[in-house]
Amino acid sequence: MGGYNRAVVLDAVRGRSSVSRVELAQATGLTNQTVSNVVRRLLDEGLIQETGQAPSHGGKRRKLLSLRPDAAYAVGVHLDPDTTVAVLLDLSGRVVRRRTMRTSSQSDPERLVRMLARGVNALIAKSDVERSRLLGLGVAVPGPMDRARGMVLDPPNLPDWHHVHLTELLGRATGLPVVMDNDATAAAIGERWAGGADRAGGFLFVYMGAGIGGGIMPADSVLRGDSGNAGEFGHVVVEPGGNECHCGARGCLEAYAAPYAVLADFAARHGRAEAERLCLTLSPEQTRADWRGLRAAATKGDRHAIEAVERAADRLGQAALTTVNLLDVRLIVLGGEALHGIEEQVHRAMHTWVNGRSIARAVRTVSVEPSLIGDHVGAVGAASLVLHGAYTPGWHMLQGDQTAPGHVGARR
Amino acid sequence: MGGYNRAVVLDAVRGRSSVSRVELAQATGLTNQTVSNVVRRLLDEGLIQETGQAPSHGGKRRKLLSLRPDAAYAVGVHLDPDTTVAVLLDLSGRVVRRRTMRTSSQSDPERLVRMLARGVNALIAKSDVERSRLLGLGVAVPGPMDRARGMVLDPPNLPDWHHVHLTELLGRATGLPVVMDNDATAAAIGERWAGGADRAGGFLFVYMGAGIGGGIMPADSVLRGDSGNAGEFGHVVVEPGGNECHCGARGCLEAYAAPYAVLADFAARHGRAEAERLCLTLSPEQTRADWRGLRAAATKGDRHAIEAVERAADRLGQAALTTVNLLDVRLIVLGGEALHGIEEQVHRAMHTWVNGRSIARAVRTVSVEPSLIGDHVGAVGAASLVLHGAYTPGWHMLQGDQTAPGHVGARR
Repeated sequence: MGGYNRAVVLDAVRGRSSVSRVELAQATGLTNQTVSNVVRRLLDEGLIQETGQAPSHGGKRRKLLSLRPDAAYAVGVHLDPDTTVAVLLDLSGRVVRRRTMRTSSQSDPERLVRMLARGVNALIAKSDVERSRLLGLGVAVPGPMDRARGMVLDPPNLPDWHHVHLTELLGRATGLPVVMDNDATAAAIGERWAGGADRAGGFLFVYMGAGIGGGIMPADSVLRGDSGNAGEFGHVVVEPGGNECHCGARGCLEAYAAPYAVLADFAARHGRAEAERLCLTLSPEQTRADWRGLRAAATKGDRHAIEAVERAADRLGQAALTTVNLLDVRLIVLGGEALHGIEEQVHRAMHTWVNGRSIARAVRTVSVEPSLIGDHVGAVGAASLVLHGAYTPGWHMLQGDQTAPGHVGARR
Repeated sequence: MGGYNRAVVLDAVRGRSSVSRVELAQATGLTNQTVSNVVRRLLDEGLIQETGQAPSHGGKRRKLLSLRPDAAYAVGVHLDPDTTVAVLLDLSGRVVRRRTMRTSSQSDPERLVRMLARGVNALIAKSDVERSRLLGLGVAVPGPMDRARGMVLDPPNLPDWHHVHLTELLGRATGLPVVMDNDATAAAIGERWAGGADRAGGFLFVYMGAGIGGGIMPADSVLRGDSGNAGEFGHVVVEPGGNECHCGARGCLEAYAAPYAVLADFAARHGRAEAERLCLTLSPEQTRADWRGLRAAATKGDRHAIEAVERAADRLGQAALTTVNLLDVRLIVLGGEALHGIEEQVHRAMHTWVNGRSIARAVRTVSVEPSLIGDHVGAVGAASLVLHGAYTPGWHMLQGDQTAPGHVGARR
């Protein structure tokens, strides 16, 4: 259990600006002797440092310990059909450097991977971080995936991608050990990792980008499911026999509330002329810009745009009710750039659905809150896969989790 | 960790008809010395026994160990608005004695509890089991509930029940420590407990009685949710703005596929005369009998009855797709008396929905299987709450689970 104790202590240090050995023993439930031994090892490894002394109340003065944020780093890549974000994260969870790459959904996977690798290598080169301090690369991908084999299958929003062995390709191209996870699950893990006590209970993370993802975090664990594809909030069926979805089913939430679907619905209801009035191109290549335009129009008070957003928000609320009835979470965290400007409507709709109608509404209120990390939660989450895999207690050790670097596609 | 090792070894003995110490060490990963120590303690406590010797292949002959099923017992009660079942379960999971009680949904909770207590006491008295060997009473209730306080809240199918402190009332009336859980969650736990390797992976348990419940078992854990109300499969929204549900929401699965709902739909489509032709009374007090009648008519080939069952099965399939997309389970287990005679249709519909349309269908096939325990899985599950709480490793120790007897409403 040495590794476990070490991870518990490191996590307790990470959660505090500075802390004494005695406080660590209290916080972790370990004996003073065990804490002392573990602390000595962590000091030797350079993961923590002594940073002064606590004020004395008589007796021996206590030395304070803190994390050395520059002791280890990880790269996180959030692969999105539209725009891919890469971040370099230090051990404290701070984004040291960021890079945004235009991802064309028409790209050949191998060429896209080469582009990503160039981006990652440039991100590292332009930072002052030595490669020896890099623990690895986490990549967050849209589902579905074959996690055990490190393969992206047929993601609905990446039509040219079929069974791409992404961890292997990226490992070869960057020379880094690569771990992969579903994008919304990675975001949820990042949110927990960064969120400390505010994210310690169970929550559902709802991510809106080109599609709609979900990450399920029961208290103190992560629900990945049997094949690593749990949390597909965008594929909650909200209308039986309804709109056809990329995934092959009908009536999925995504086919009603994802940007492309809301825009298509807007065009079908109001026609091209009305879309042009709001400067929407309705071209599939311009979904991201059009979606920004529609949200802007709603913010400015355009009635049709507001109604379109309200319809999407209502569908999100309906799916949230179903999900809360199944998972009984107390918190829904909202993240993703595509929610900018419509947070309030989505918040209101979800709040109304889950607290007005959920089966356990008499026992608890469900909060709906924005992500603590913000826009790049997918990329930060991807990097945190590496860091928590290496350093966070409980996760891979108790959950049979395979995110520890080196398990998947490791090439040092 | 002594208690944990003890539970691991006991569980390994329980899963085998007879086993040697060496095999136990192999099965548990514990050292031979630890296994020997734990085995000695379990023998002293009378939980296991030596039952002969393994055939010798040269060298020392190995003594074989097996469980003493009569070492400990638990009572399980499945409180159902219609018919309540109580079982006496031995340590091996065998039902030693069973008792069925007519539960009127109009009953005052206190009087109903007195009736249950009389039933439980009679069940114990008529068996040869000494009270000292009884570990406690597990009670499985329809949701929603306040698990921390042992309270049944406002179960949709028990209209006279409002915030009933069931564990306290039952504890006082029987003199036994009482643990409580959601009925479908208890059934799922019983299914895992009894199912051994066949139920070791993750699964969703779907229970159909008066209502429709669900129990969520990710691999090696149970998902209870923040307030103990996870798994409400019957309250997956299948039709936005649809039929009003007992729970206060609209369009829940239960309002389409529970027996009362299917019967109401049948009456609305075909009228009273057609119902009478099939000998359906359509009286709310006769839902159980009418539902039996409708299933019998479907089995005999009545077209309208078949269509009614098919519609319900289709709704169950739709809700299963949503649930599988969220949870990514590889197995759905079907249980409950209300499914008798229509298993095939439900199986077919669920299979079609989840394997034809789920987002991860390329990576894995989802099986749909009947419960290994059969009809009384709710009551057996309730009793297993007590036994696994006392003896099964991992559950309450790693999950912060409170089902260990004595935690809730304990009165020895």
